[in-house]
Amino acid sequence: MIFSLYQMEGMKPHTIVYIAQSLDGYIADSDGNIDWLEAIPNPNGDMMGYDVLMQDVDAIIMGRGTYETVLAFDIDWPYQIPVYVLSSKLKTVPEHLSSKVFLLNGKLDFILSTLSKKGYQGLYIDGGKTIQSFLAEDLIDELRITTLPILLGGGSSLFGTLENRLAWDHVTTSVYLDQLVQSHYRRKRES
Amino acid sequence: MIFSLYQMEGMKPHTIVYIAQSLDGYIADSDGNIDWLEAIPNPNGDMMGYDVLMQDVDAIIMGRGTYETVLAFDIDWPYQIPVYVLSSKLKTVPEHLSSKVFLLNGKLDFILSTLSKKGYQGLYIDGGKTIQSFLAEDLIDELRITTLPILLGGGSSLFGTLENRLAWDHVTTSVYLDQLVQSHYRRKRES
Repeated sequence: MIFSLYQMEGMKPHTIVYIAQSLDGYIADSDGNIDWLEAIPNPNGDMMGYDVLMQDVDAIIMGRGTYETVLAFDIDWPYQIPVYVLSSKLKTVPEHLSSKVFLLNGKLDFILSTLSKKGYQGLYIDGGKTIQSFLAEDLIDELRITTLPILLGGGSSLFGTLENRLAWDHVTTSVYLDQLVQSHYRRKRES
Repeated sequence: MIFSLYQMEGMKPHTIVYIAQSLDGYIADSDGNIDWLEAIPNPNGDMMGYDVLMQDVDAIIMGRGTYETVLAFDIDWPYQIPVYVLSSKLKTVPEHLSSKVFLLNGKLDFILSTLSKKGYQGLYIDGGKTIQSFLAEDLIDELRITTLPILLGGGSSLFGTLENRLAWDHVTTSVYLDQLVQSHYRRKRES
């Protein structure tokens, strides 16, 4: 068996969370609504760091929930890079997505080493449950969180419970559309 | 009965929350610890907006929990302006604080109109439960929230549940000590 240089060096792809939350830390309200994400007018189509993110990743990992939500939007498939959907339930993807969407199943470190062997260097980790499970195993390298100026008062939390504290280094903060505060954090690990 | 101009105009004091939270929205960890608030070195004693806050308020409202926590620090009383402690349980304050600490009890709008009649114009609302109860009645005008780069994974949440969404206007965001992100929001009310 021949190991790639990547694998020999034990390199894992760089994992990045890019997501929007309410001021009280929800990614959807109690009814699952995300209409509030569009509440701030964006007349000039500011990409709010999404374009930069797309330069920094070469694949996306999302949970089944997020994948099915995107499918239900009934729009053209919005991603230009491969999407890996974590699911033990799904067995197939629609024919027209067969070169764009791939199903994965298993422990997260196995999934990361599988994607590492495929040569991916940057992974966009998306979806509430998926983000929480990666964080629970301390497998996120970078957080890019956009906070919207609204208190929802309830809903689905971005962050879940953790066994241990996770410390981060603040990298940069930008304000978009005068209203959205996006902060980037890099995981602070003992070297 | 003579009404002050303030009262006649129905003016309520401007209420400001100034507080620090973890990246996952906690103000204390699961054991009530706030040691992580001091994790970022502050060699030059940056006031991180506290000095500005003190120019904007002329009294403090806090709950019994916060008051007793401050008392337990066993330091000189740290506030230069009057502190109103919300409690139905406490009946007296220590002799040496009798000109600095005052007990209040009752509905929040009664408390605000009481303090309005005393001429206060800016109130610093402090303490988790107190903040949540003011927000639940939409009685907060301004939020000044400092986020620290740590995921605690559990603890006491800054924000509680709300019956209705509350929209805010982002006013300004500053980064302190390269690590702490402080955003100011003003309540967006229909005029």
